[in-house]
Amino acid sequence: MAIQILLARHAGFCFGVKRAVKIATQSSALHKEVNTLGQIIHNPQVVEDLISKGVKPINNLDECGDNPIIIRSHGVPFETYNKLEQLGNEIIDATCPFVLRAQDKVAKADKMGYQVYIYGDADHPEVLSLNSFAINKPAIVFSTPNELKGKPVSRSAVISQTTKDLAGFKAVVCRMVEDCPELLVFNTICTATAIRQRHTVELAQEVDLMLIIGGKNSSNTKMLAKLSSEHAETYHIETADEMKKEWFAKKEKIGISAGASTPDNIIVAIYNRIIDWFGGLTKAVNVADIPVH
Amino acid sequence: MAIQILLARHAGFCFGVKRAVKIATQSSALHKEVNTLGQIIHNPQVVEDLISKGVKPINNLDECGDNPIIIRSHGVPFETYNKLEQLGNEIIDATCPFVLRAQDKVAKADKMGYQVYIYGDADHPEVLSLNSFAINKPAIVFSTPNELKGKPVSRSAVISQTTKDLAGFKAVVCRMVEDCPELLVFNTICTATAIRQRHTVELAQEVDLMLIIGGKNSSNTKMLAKLSSEHAETYHIETADEMKKEWFAKKEKIGISAGASTPDNIIVAIYNRIIDWFGGLTKAVNVADIPVH
Repeated sequence: MAIQILLARHAGFCFGVKRAVKIATQSSALHKEVNTLGQIIHNPQVVEDLISKGVKPINNLDECGDNPIIIRSHGVPFETYNKLEQLGNEIIDATCPFVLRAQDKVAKADKMGYQVYIYGDADHPEVLSLNSFAINKPAIVFSTPNELKGKPVSRSAVISQTTKDLAGFKAVVCRMVEDCPELLVFNTICTATAIRQRHTVELAQEVDLMLIIGGKNSSNTKMLAKLSSEHAETYHIETADEMKKEWFAKKEKIGISAGASTPDNIIVAIYNRIIDWFGGLTKAVNVADIPVH
Repeated sequence: MAIQILLARHAGFCFGVKRAVKIATQSSALHKEVNTLGQIIHNPQVVEDLISKGVKPINNLDECGDNPIIIRSHGVPFETYNKLEQLGNEIIDATCPFVLRAQDKVAKADKMGYQVYIYGDADHPEVLSLNSFAINKPAIVFSTPNELKGKPVSRSAVISQTTKDLAGFKAVVCRMVEDCPELLVFNTICTATAIRQRHTVELAQEVDLMLIIGGKNSSNTKMLAKLSSEHAETYHIETADEMKKEWFAKKEKIGISAGASTPDNIIVAIYNRIIDWFGGLTKAVNVADIPVH
């Protein structure tokens, strides 16, 4: 029987990533060199492509010289804005609007005297940024519902890293509600993330093998891989070269999903590689040529 | 084998009910007649006893004459306080402090512009009272998580009738969090209620038959009966006279729990009636004589 390949209904670049890459590309046309503080999005291939256009990641502000600075999609800590202003470099803000909104919520809750809890990965740039907006009292950060120990502070606020899973966030809220007389909940999970997760799970439930495409350092892609692996044999890959032909032995129905920072051309290359190996289908030119679940 | 009878670790009068009955009894000693707006607590036997002491329930303020008015444990609507002040009668407030706190939360959330949702029974006096404190916009009242239809308003606050179940409230919050960007949660379930429910369920899981004692009109007693019935054959009774000997055929281990408005003497009478029928145990004089689970 011929192999069947289906792409999840929502996969690949989200609004915030598209916007950040567009901002970076436009800036590269206007300046000889621009810098991003850290990688602009969590996809090594996209970052490499942008470097070739003069958009170079730096690790700290000492390295920037006079170049304009692009703030990456995940946002930066509150203090970095102050430092950037002192330096006087041109600032190009590519922070995802959903992250900006989450920053506002942290600042608001902290100002109102709530103890802020952040459901997210402590060392993720977005979470470092969010936490910095809790100016009066540092936020409590945890990456799984089980990490929450003891009773929450009696007036607490809880928010989520924009790319975490809704089921986990609901479990967190349920646990906190039990012992917290006043809990302010900001559901800051971005709609695209929630939809992408749901479609990935629906697809994983129907196929023999799932390929989740995206940066190994991409939080939202890792979450897709985790959720997918609960329903199907799952491989998290960055590029077509990582695939092994033997994964597909005796597999008839293949599902593909991709993180919010995965560009279309990588999805197309992976789809075409499978067709190279097993035939029976027409190769894709654009991502729109791939059958959607 | 002799019958075994165990009383749930927390059963019977809660703090708020004890306080209300004490206030009513003290008032009856000071005045020839006092009135309560509606029944002071949801237990017909206690209400009858208080009537014999001159504490008489009335249905509306037209009936009160010059008597002092006791506000019952469930609280009264906001408007009633105004009317009482206009009438000029002495006001004795026996509202449960946990209900007072819930009233405050509704008023606070309403004032802050949130749409208030109340998880409670729409025609229960406590819920009528709570709802009246949402002055700017009427609250949305629902008694089961499934009654919540459609998306909640984007800035919502949710509170619970003090005697509802924690599991149901958590299900409500989980459902609302999904589609609500900002949700202020007040867990107003009173601690005594939550503890009584937990101990009732734990007992029900271990016995052959459960007796839940309390007013048929008592919301918290009905909730105990509902939770108990999920684990054991359960009878909700007000007095010993309602019991039937045949319920106990082939039953060895009996559990007893009682609502927050059930006085000790009714629990003792029921315990002793079972011993009258089946023997093998020493009768109780006080509730403290009954073995506790």
